[in-house]
This record gives sequence, C-alpha cells and structure tokens, in this order.
Amino acid sequence: MVLYMRPEQLNATFSALADPTRRAILARLATGEASVNELAEPFDMSLPAVTKHLKVLQRAGLISQSRLAQQRPCKLEAKPLQDAVNWIEQYRRFWEQRLDQLDAYLLTLQNQQKEQNNE
Amino acid sequence: MVLYMRPEQLNATFSALADPTRRAILARLATGEASVNELAEPFDMSLPAVTKHLKVLQRAGLISQSRLAQQRPCKLEAKPLQDAVNWIEQYRRFWEQRLDQLDAYLLTLQNQQKEQNNE
Repeated sequence: MVLYMRPEQLNATFSALADPTRRAILARLATGEASVNELAEPFDMSLPAVTKHLKVLQRAGLISQSRLAQQRPCKLEAKPLQDAVNWIEQYRRFWEQRLDQLDAYLLTLQNQQKEQNNE
Repeated sequence: MVLYMRPEQLNATFSALADPTRRAILARLATGEASVNELAEPFDMSLPAVTKHLKVLQRAGLISQSRLAQQRPCKLEAKPLQDAVNWIEQYRRFWEQRLDQLDAYLLTLQNQQKEQNNE
C-alpha cells in the first residue's frame, strides 16, 4: 500500500526537521507544553531567533500555540510527524524485503558450500 | 531510551527529504538499482538538474553510486532513513503515552457521567 501524502506538507515537515534547534524544541515539547520563554531558555539564542524557529514549526503544523492562556504555551502536533514516518516506512518494507532475499540467497550459498565440503 | 544520532547527519537526511523530486528518486530506488538516465526519465528535468539532486542524496549518504559497472547504477542506502525514523519514533512514544493518558481521563469522565445519569 502506497499512502498518499500532500507533497507540500512533507516538504515543510522534513525542512522543519532539518535544523538541530527545531528538533531540540520538538524534543522538549514531546515532554509537555511550554511557553516561548521556557523553550528559549536552553539555547544561547535571542528570543526573536527562537521565535523565528517556532514560526517555521508552526507553518509546518508541527506545533500550535494556544491563544487563550496568558503564557500562550506551545504544543506539539503529532500528525505531520506521523505522516513523515509513514512516508519513510512505506519504502522501508521494500528494502527489508530485499535484505531478506539477500539473506536467504547467502544462506543457500553457505549450505551448498557445506554440502560440497561434506562430499 | 534516547538514541544519540549525529546532528549533521540528521540535518542532511531531513534536508534531502524536503524535496519531492528527491523523494521520488528514493521511492524509485527502493524498488531496485537504476542508472542516472533511468532515474531522470520520469522527470521533466534536464540531466544536470537530476544529477544535482543525486549529489544532495549522495552527500546525505542516502544513495551510493557504483564505480564498477559502465552504467554506474545508483543504489539506496537505508541506514540514514532508519536513523531519521528512529529520531522521530523516540519522541512518538511520549506523545502516544500522553494520548493514552488523555483517553483514560476521558473514559473516567464518561463513566462518572453515566453513573450520575443512573442515580
């Protein structure tokens, strides 16, 4: 089964993941909601620089920001990450099949070798 | 368990995956080796443009090119993709736990509501 996923969404997700600061922000948010100040804390980075990364993550749909609470906490959105994994996984099955075939072939060769040695 | 993966490698992998042509090339290579000409065929693109994408994939370690055969076929390398999935998956467990907790909480609320209605 080859799943259909919007190319623009996958572009945005993978592009957002291609930066170590953004991955660290997602890793932090995986443990729970956090305010922009809390997210900025561990990075040696200005608040506007962190905000820029948050905007990239937000545009990619990987995080959302509450408009209700005063702290406007950020929250991780799992769906695009799930789609990204699904995209990779759908092809992983092919390689694993090919690796299994190679394993089976090598085993056959080994057994033939053993038989020849026993003759 | 939080796995350690080289940040530069993950940057390169996700960056390479952020383009639909490169994803299509990887999808093609998942079904077997192919020459540069074979890879270029389905795209409305010049050979140098395709070669440029192949170089990005090669630098990210996602494909390798044989130096032996005359056709110099390209081959998919699964390891970086596996690492990319692992990076996403290690955090997915956190969200799923949180989703499970939310489910359990909602179920408790529902049961309380039912009990109240039956009183």
